[in-house]
Amino acid sequence: MDVRLKRRRASPNRTVEGDLSAGPAAAALDQAEKLKLGELDGHLGYFLRRLQIAVFKDFIRTLAPMDVRPAQYSVLLLIEANPGRSQAAIGQALDIERARLARLLHVLEGRGWIERRAADGDGRSHSLYLTRGGEKALVRIKALAARHEAWLADALGSKRRLLLMDLLKEFG
Amino acid sequence: MDVRLKRRRASPNRTVEGDLSAGPAAAALDQAEKLKLGELDGHLGYFLRRLQIAVFKDFIRTLAPMDVRPAQYSVLLLIEANPGRSQAAIGQALDIERARLARLLHVLEGRGWIERRAADGDGRSHSLYLTRGGEKALVRIKALAARHEAWLADALGSKRRLLLMDLLKEFG
Repeated sequence: MDVRLKRRRASPNRTVEGDLSAGPAAAALDQAEKLKLGELDGHLGYFLRRLQIAVFKDFIRTLAPMDVRPAQYSVLLLIEANPGRSQAAIGQALDIERARLARLLHVLEGRGWIERRAADGDGRSHSLYLTRGGEKALVRIKALAARHEAWLADALGSKRRLLLMDLLKEFG
Repeated sequence: MDVRLKRRRASPNRTVEGDLSAGPAAAALDQAEKLKLGELDGHLGYFLRRLQIAVFKDFIRTLAPMDVRPAQYSVLLLIEANPGRSQAAIGQALDIERARLARLLHVLEGRGWIERRAADGDGRSHSLYLTRGGEKALVRIKALAARHEAWLADALGSKRRLLLMDLLKEFG
């Protein structure tokens, strides 16, 4: 498994090494182009974003055989755990804006993985369910997602991954 | 200061409360619509993304008086800390794709905050500098960014913010 997150010691003159998930060629360029972080070094959002991007890149790469992106995966898991709930509830839980969720659900429906049924008594509202095909696809998707998560545990160290998870969950 | 991140205890049947930065109306809807997280609960990327979104929302809200977004702010700080470096170096350090960076720099140039000078001996390469106006704007921008960071320390707790920062920096 390709572990591309680079562990670095904290230092008073931190520099930034570019794309966390870039390959050897980019790493060589980094060497020539090291930049000072300046006041970015004091912003949690910057470091959150960097790790989040690296993690999403690996997820997308690992899930490529099933062509599933992080938001699609989240929606599939939430529908699985909450069959029959509304589009609005799923969108709100994941903080996905209405139009974007509609497009995303359209794609999942087109692949035969989910179905939308009109909710009783409200023509505008739809309840979401996995199809039999969706359940079968999800078995393969979860196996790839587990591989991604194992990569992450390897890249961060299992203990650090859990510590980070605990800290983030307190506010999740 | 409006602290909207909700601290929650870990529990075996975790639910998800929707947009971390949503207001009271959304919170009321959440109450009616609580969803189970299902296997999302085991994915670090999900929790990273949630906090990152909440942090970026507050940043955008707090920086609204200067109409500055996170990526613009990062670029301004990197140019400040590394005057004269190339567009390619800045883009790579921040993992911003070439076309998007070009648009972003165009906006900053239009506001009179940065200038691009052709680098010696290479007509295709540009060196980036803050203008005098950019330096002045950055004083006000940093004051707002400090307010955002204070909100975050308040929302997460100072110690937890630092712990999270340390963990993230090890891989940054």
